[in-house]
Amino acid sequence: VFAARGTSDHAALYAAYLTEIRLGIPAGLASPSAITVYGARPDLANALVVGVSQSGGSPDLTEVLRAARESGALTIAVTNNTDSALNRVAELAVDVRAGHERAVAATKTYTAELLALLLLIEAVRGVGRLPDDTLAELDAVPKLAADLIADPTAAQLAPRYRFANQLVTTGRGYGYPTAREAALKLMETSYLAALAFSGADLLHGPLAMADDQVPVLAIVGSGPGGRAMHEVISRLANGRADVVTVGSGEIPHTAGRIAVPPVDERLAALLDILPIQQLALSLAVERGLDPDAPRGLEKVTATL
Amino acid sequence: VFAARGTSDHAALYAAYLTEIRLGIPAGLASPSAITVYGARPDLANALVVGVSQSGGSPDLTEVLRAARESGALTIAVTNNTDSALNRVAELAVDVRAGHERAVAATKTYTAELLALLLLIEAVRGVGRLPDDTLAELDAVPKLAADLIADPTAAQLAPRYRFANQLVTTGRGYGYPTAREAALKLMETSYLAALAFSGADLLHGPLAMADDQVPVLAIVGSGPGGRAMHEVISRLANGRADVVTVGSGEIPHTAGRIAVPPVDERLAALLDILPIQQLALSLAVERGLDPDAPRGLEKVTATL
Repeated sequence: VFAARGTSDHAALYAAYLTEIRLGIPAGLASPSAITVYGARPDLANALVVGVSQSGGSPDLTEVLRAARESGALTIAVTNNTDSALNRVAELAVDVRAGHERAVAATKTYTAELLALLLLIEAVRGVGRLPDDTLAELDAVPKLAADLIADPTAAQLAPRYRFANQLVTTGRGYGYPTAREAALKLMETSYLAALAFSGADLLHGPLAMADDQVPVLAIVGSGPGGRAMHEVISRLANGRADVVTVGSGEIPHTAGRIAVPPVDERLAALLDILPIQQLALSLAVERGLDPDAPRGLEKVTATL
Repeated sequence: VFAARGTSDHAALYAAYLTEIRLGIPAGLASPSAITVYGARPDLANALVVGVSQSGGSPDLTEVLRAARESGALTIAVTNNTDSALNRVAELAVDVRAGHERAVAATKTYTAELLALLLLIEAVRGVGRLPDDTLAELDAVPKLAADLIADPTAAQLAPRYRFANQLVTTGRGYGYPTAREAALKLMETSYLAALAFSGADLLHGPLAMADDQVPVLAIVGSGPGGRAMHEVISRLANGRADVVTVGSGEIPHTAGRIAVPPVDERLAALLDILPIQQLALSLAVERGLDPDAPRGLEKVTATL
């Protein structure tokens, strides 16, 4: 069971997919309000409960971990601040070691959380040590990430959305958390009404609102999740939607593409989000906004 | 574990809250793509897996139930069509008995699913029979629902949103599935970019985009979930958001209110959605659209 809010909730969603796919252990996201608002005490005696939070300061997550631990769960805090309330309540800790997060709209702590959760889950798979194949695949990631950050494609795309009121993001499997985080980043920094859907859920209703006036940002890797997006994009094309893809997957006849180097799809989440963060930054600047100071937000959000 | 898509996914989310709060059993929603796209086989030997679907015809849910059953789970199909693929793969069945669903954007089958799941979960709580308190509370619901359907408040509110491009819906606890379903109904029928957030998640980022140009529909009951919305609405008011509340909870100084008679909050989901469905209908008609024929959608959505 993963418990998180906001950006960290998307890292937690990624971790839930990884847990089911790589470990064959059922995984899901906690609904904190069942515990914090209604006083539910689900019996989590056989569960590992992982709280994920940049600051470790959200009182609702602390309360979820406290209730879980009381019911017999093993608890872990995955934070960027080991001196946090979440760390004090959890038995075990993973420090994501991202250094001080200066942005209100979290960026480097998101990728650091993804990596920390990936390492944790792969180490469970390797019974206490990281499997060699994972280590070899991860070795390539820092250089690929640096190259991506130097690539101007995403920033150059920002003027295209200067006057967009809304935007749809979509992905499947490992690409779905990226779609969710993309929508949040664009909402936080550019005040765009960005709607995130899993590719499958998009076909169950929201597809109706995607017309040629609603831009679509689709996460399309070259693995199973990316391949499952091909039908979704062909349905969107029937509605003459304006689709830009992000990822290593190639789909002909889209309005644009932010190419990301191919890696195993479970690692793609670490890379795909980088140009999207750059797009959010450039779009905010294009709109005359300060992406480091979103209105109404603070770095530590206290919800109960 | 609940597995569902679209509107039924919101009924499943409601059932997950009920399961944790009323039964103290950990509950969550399946991510079908882990199983159908990546071939994950999570060990569900100790789980009850409930597939929820109007048509029972979505291949991904059938596949999730098949994999769950193979791994030793007890499986139930909750459908409005007992002669469905989902029913054939599940060991047990609950017929929601809503009669033929004529709308593409499901309405009566949504409330019927909510009720069927409530009865199922309360009957588990009553160890095979419905507790008397639940029966007494439910007795009042049909009359309250009929009165609500006859109330013109929601329809009269539709012109207010005639030229809105986007809308935010929000709720907490039992009110959150209603917020999600409200957003979906407005997207399907009025092509409005409707963004649904739990009240807590709204404060973790999306709040930045809620200004006086973005209408907010907030589900506010008079129980714990509704009370937890007061702080959210006060934060929205700071940003001069235009907030209309739906439910039995009263909050001063909002832009409008769709009042719903007070019932125990776990039953409020059965009532709160009715005026919202009417709002979606009236707004679609106001915009010259046919709410019974959303573009690009079919009644049975086949996703894998």
